[in-house]
Amino acid sequence: MFSLIFAESALETIPDSIMHHSCVVAHAQKLRKKPHEILLDNSWHYAAMKKIKNQIKRGRPDIIHFSLLEATTIPLYRANKIKVYVHTIHNKVITLGANINLPKSYHRFQGLIEKLYQKTEIQSYDNTLLQLHDMTLSQLIQKINPKTVIGLSREKGSSMVSPATLVRKFDNDTCLIIGGFQKGHFSESTKSCIDTLYQIHQESLESHVVTSRILYEYEKTLFM
Amino acid sequence: MFSLIFAESALETIPDSIMHHSCVVAHAQKLRKKPHEILLDNSWHYAAMKKIKNQIKRGRPDIIHFSLLEATTIPLYRANKIKVYVHTIHNKVITLGANINLPKSYHRFQGLIEKLYQKTEIQSYDNTLLQLHDMTLSQLIQKINPKTVIGLSREKGSSMVSPATLVRKFDNDTCLIIGGFQKGHFSESTKSCIDTLYQIHQESLESHVVTSRILYEYEKTLFM
Repeated sequence: MFSLIFAESALETIPDSIMHHSCVVAHAQKLRKKPHEILLDNSWHYAAMKKIKNQIKRGRPDIIHFSLLEATTIPLYRANKIKVYVHTIHNKVITLGANINLPKSYHRFQGLIEKLYQKTEIQSYDNTLLQLHDMTLSQLIQKINPKTVIGLSREKGSSMVSPATLVRKFDNDTCLIIGGFQKGHFSESTKSCIDTLYQIHQESLESHVVTSRILYEYEKTLFM
Repeated sequence: MFSLIFAESALETIPDSIMHHSCVVAHAQKLRKKPHEILLDNSWHYAAMKKIKNQIKRGRPDIIHFSLLEATTIPLYRANKIKVYVHTIHNKVITLGANINLPKSYHRFQGLIEKLYQKTEIQSYDNTLLQLHDMTLSQLIQKINPKTVIGLSREKGSSMVSPATLVRKFDNDTCLIIGGFQKGHFSESTKSCIDTLYQIHQESLESHVVTSRILYEYEKTLFM
């Protein structure tokens, strides 16, 4: 099946190094949770995050919330024509079941992902909605075993192509990789997993915009 | 300029009738605000909302958050080729300035809109970011004075058309109306403001999906 991976996504629980920072402790108390149980979020933990490595690519769970909603609220996903994965900056992989309805409300999404980090699996009746694995991007791609891996990035060397033209290169065995972070480029390790890099606009587009445009164009090739 | 209105949007502060409901009072206390200062949100106030009229079309501020992000994080908006308005179910109208960056984080968006409901204007340096007016949809359309008003709805009588075909009917003087609510159809009063109703898919699509697809297709007619 056609697969989409959000790579190096800015989704993680509070790292040990800032567990005791006052802004983290205060926010955890407000949520009635322990610091290691809550998601790192630069909107709440900005002061603490100044001290962490690779800060610019971390602590933006809203990016994955929006991007997953773009990918799962569309006819392409409802028709089971796409498999969606989230790879995180610290090599966790979230697999999404078919036909799941992710919460639109951010605080419910946050609660769901925090629960996933604790339990590693979210079930509803007989269905597995979400699973969390320790897995690198390379291991995930080996598991998916696609014919082609296409990455989207504005980095030097990527070929400019319109979304409508790009999706003509897709088939059932294609794996598409979109960055799940705010700024910066793919790491060398991510790039080593990608066969070809493309950019779809001269300006930088946010992950949710890239996701909606590409999946809409791909959906058109299948259904229209 | 081409204009987009989210009509009858599920965005309002807590109505008087449920101001004293225990779930509203508890949530307001958590936010350290008074009940009338916070947004009605069915994710928090579901128990209280059972008692209000037209419940199905109310209390979903996340719909407008997503839809506004779809409309304002794209090249079309950055190039100042679209003017965006939010009309609410209780006849408030929010006008958005040019080139504003709405918060991606839901709690910051919520705080911003709550402040707007109190102050009726949000400024940043010399720019007016957001303004809140008492205005019906009909009055807003009179003010915009478009040549054509196109509405999107799956209601009986609306013509099926693909987004790519629909946008060929748009020009600088078109006003597009998308519902800013979860379920149900436009009110009679809204329909009386619309020249032609179209539907872009046989399935029901959420407001943010409709917004992203139509604006992307319209952007293509201008820039590609």
